[in-house]
Amino acid sequence: MSQLVSVGRPEGEERGGSAGAERLTASEAARLIRDRRLTAGELARACIDRTLLRDEQIHAWTVFETEMVLAQASERDAEPLRGPLHGVPVGIKDILFTRDLPTTYNSPHFQSHHPNMDAAVVSLLRAAGAVVFGKNDTVEFAVNGRRARTRNPHDLRRTPGGSSSGSAAAVADFQVPLSIGTQTGGSVIRPASYCGVWGMKPTWNAVSAEGMKVCAPSIDTLGWYGRSAQDIALLCDVFRIVDDEPVALPSIDGARIAICRSPVWHLAEQPTRDALDLCADLFHSHGAEVTFLDLPESFDGLTAAHKVVMQSEMRSTFLPEFLAFGHALYPELVATMRNDSGFSRADLRAAYDLAATCRARFDELAASYTAVLTPSVAGIAPIGLEDTGAATFNRIWTLLHTPCVNVPGLSGPDGMPIGVTMTGPRFCDRRVLEAARLFGDLLDLRTREGQP
Amino acid sequence: MSQLVSVGRPEGEERGGSAGAERLTASEAARLIRDRRLTAGELARACIDRTLLRDEQIHAWTVFETEMVLAQASERDAEPLRGPLHGVPVGIKDILFTRDLPTTYNSPHFQSHHPNMDAAVVSLLRAAGAVVFGKNDTVEFAVNGRRARTRNPHDLRRTPGGSSSGSAAAVADFQVPLSIGTQTGGSVIRPASYCGVWGMKPTWNAVSAEGMKVCAPSIDTLGWYGRSAQDIALLCDVFRIVDDEPVALPSIDGARIAICRSPVWHLAEQPTRDALDLCADLFHSHGAEVTFLDLPESFDGLTAAHKVVMQSEMRSTFLPEFLAFGHALYPELVATMRNDSGFSRADLRAAYDLAATCRARFDELAASYTAVLTPSVAGIAPIGLEDTGAATFNRIWTLLHTPCVNVPGLSGPDGMPIGVTMTGPRFCDRRVLEAARLFGDLLDLRTREGQP
Repeated sequence: MSQLVSVGRPEGEERGGSAGAERLTASEAARLIRDRRLTAGELARACIDRTLLRDEQIHAWTVFETEMVLAQASERDAEPLRGPLHGVPVGIKDILFTRDLPTTYNSPHFQSHHPNMDAAVVSLLRAAGAVVFGKNDTVEFAVNGRRARTRNPHDLRRTPGGSSSGSAAAVADFQVPLSIGTQTGGSVIRPASYCGVWGMKPTWNAVSAEGMKVCAPSIDTLGWYGRSAQDIALLCDVFRIVDDEPVALPSIDGARIAICRSPVWHLAEQPTRDALDLCADLFHSHGAEVTFLDLPESFDGLTAAHKVVMQSEMRSTFLPEFLAFGHALYPELVATMRNDSGFSRADLRAAYDLAATCRARFDELAASYTAVLTPSVAGIAPIGLEDTGAATFNRIWTLLHTPCVNVPGLSGPDGMPIGVTMTGPRFCDRRVLEAARLFGDLLDLRTREGQP
Repeated sequence: MSQLVSVGRPEGEERGGSAGAERLTASEAARLIRDRRLTAGELARACIDRTLLRDEQIHAWTVFETEMVLAQASERDAEPLRGPLHGVPVGIKDILFTRDLPTTYNSPHFQSHHPNMDAAVVSLLRAAGAVVFGKNDTVEFAVNGRRARTRNPHDLRRTPGGSSSGSAAAVADFQVPLSIGTQTGGSVIRPASYCGVWGMKPTWNAVSAEGMKVCAPSIDTLGWYGRSAQDIALLCDVFRIVDDEPVALPSIDGARIAICRSPVWHLAEQPTRDALDLCADLFHSHGAEVTFLDLPESFDGLTAAHKVVMQSEMRSTFLPEFLAFGHALYPELVATMRNDSGFSRADLRAAYDLAATCRARFDELAASYTAVLTPSVAGIAPIGLEDTGAATFNRIWTLLHTPCVNVPGLSGPDGMPIGVTMTGPRFCDRRVLEAARLFGDLLDLRTREGQP
């Protein structure tokens, strides 16, 4: 199991054909390919071998065709450099359209669904030279209903989290260096924490969600996974995410860090409480100025507002499916379509307006800090695949539209990973990621020094 | 030309096979089909004949295949009643996906583009029994660049407005009783005004925009056209648009109407000024309480904020096209992608926050009125096809997310139509439409009495 926690270079020779290439980060692999010390074909074969070896345990994919992967890799090897991901395999959550593979939403009703077009994000990946590796398993429609078959690579008895289950697990398990997920509640950050990988949900609307199965348009957000902060940044480059001001954070020393326990802190379990304490200490001891940021009382309503927004928007977006499949849809979705919660239009208006007010207010509150640290999850990954964990600690940030990065590197009971979230004002994505990278380095150092 | 202004039942026999059936409203046609006094095939043939007769002048379609229309009509005639639009032809703006017809965006780069799926709104129409009649011509990507070839049915020298040019003209010209458009600036309401038809842009997000070419997700809005308020309401039913409170407005007598000249009133031309005066008089003389509503100063910034939001979001949504086609895209789009306007992330944040504040404020201001009347356009349709008119009077309502209905029935110089917009708080779509219907009746009465 310990091999999975390591995110560094595989031991042994640097250029070894495909041997161990599946353990390279995307940045490392892209550099080796650029330098002609590794071919896209070798990398693809290494990732395919790893996937075939592990798939029976991990089940990270709904659709995976080795021939198609190898064909793309051959194309990359035969052509000039397309961009910064030339030859790098990327997993795509199976609610994003891919012109050459089905998009099943992991729904029994869409098993032969095959939109013949690429989601915007898939187009951008291909333009950067990426190899589309396959479709990652997901909770049905990325909402609820049928669970992904995916298991947590750190403990096969446990959930990898949801809904981007396969995307997070495939990266954690070295099957691909990068993958794409989506978040409407906590579907990117939670699996990142449970699987011990880097995950980023950028500012809402910073990356086009076109070609994603729409759930709740005012909060649906693309996101991605990698095994290093550099890899997360590489995708920021590919997606053209730029802050107004160039980011230059030399070190944690002198940084101003706010620790925000968030309005749902009473739901934090011991591992999360311990993680936040440890982070505060670590920041302190490395020269950061640490403040505890209590959000104003109005933020207490955000969790309820998130539910109103999500369910109300779903009543529009899933109407075609409801008309087509009716009560054959899973019960929670039927309940949403029937509006069993009884949300009114006035409730939705109030939820929109509360969210908007809190967005502006949070940006103000966060502006003077380098970044804001907050829990990624209530605790470690639950046992079993049915309970994918709660989005409790993610929903308010999704509704606030802020950039969130899960920083891995800590562990809780049974050695299971536990992450923390770095966030900040909307559209300060690169600043937040840079702070996360520096903090990740501290956690790495700590791990290398053998601390738990 | 006068035949085009009439929106009533065609003269002559009520059941005349297909003769004159193209002049029925959707509600009338659906009832006749339901009562087995007209077949979907007869209606389809009448609309096809009209289209073939007029297409050389009007050019309302990018894609139109008679065989496909007749095949759908035959299916409808052979099956039980699907829903309230059984057998009714509907035009679909060519930026909305249709599984059986290409979706070209009227872009030279997408002439053979054919997503094999239906937009959400197209699925809902089919579930209600509608016949997809063809794809309506549009300004390229519904933004700028290549204009629709469509001409205004009231004066072939004039623009029908844009970007939903073909959708509005096809309904005005009796080629179809209903059509679907989209609005990110003024692309539904302006063409409705120029072409003298009913048009509705509902509250943002009340109808799923999935399967529409995404432009600016936080303001992109589906909309539709018809030749009667009842037809607009029929589509509200199909799309499940319901207010919190049931709407019952017996008459204009006693209604509380606010007339809002809007922050861009200085750009109103004489025909619009005359139209608003006439509306105020008409409301007065029919017993409505009329108030002039001046929006707070902060609303003055909404036009500039709309530009920031639209261009900034386009930089994400059109990135795949920009990477694929680069400077072969039309110059204004290239300028947006290069951010020639120099909009920062802080500008976008400020624009989002101003819009959000004004949304809540406008809802408060409008709450005590039955509806708010405001201009649809600066004036009548310009001469020429290059200038599709300005969205000046529409942008702030698009950004405010409020439901807007264009009420036709007035005319300006050269007998050209000029509409007015009825709006109100978000999610009061049915109330706004009902007020518009009552006011439309007054305008009809006035026209029948021979007043200009």
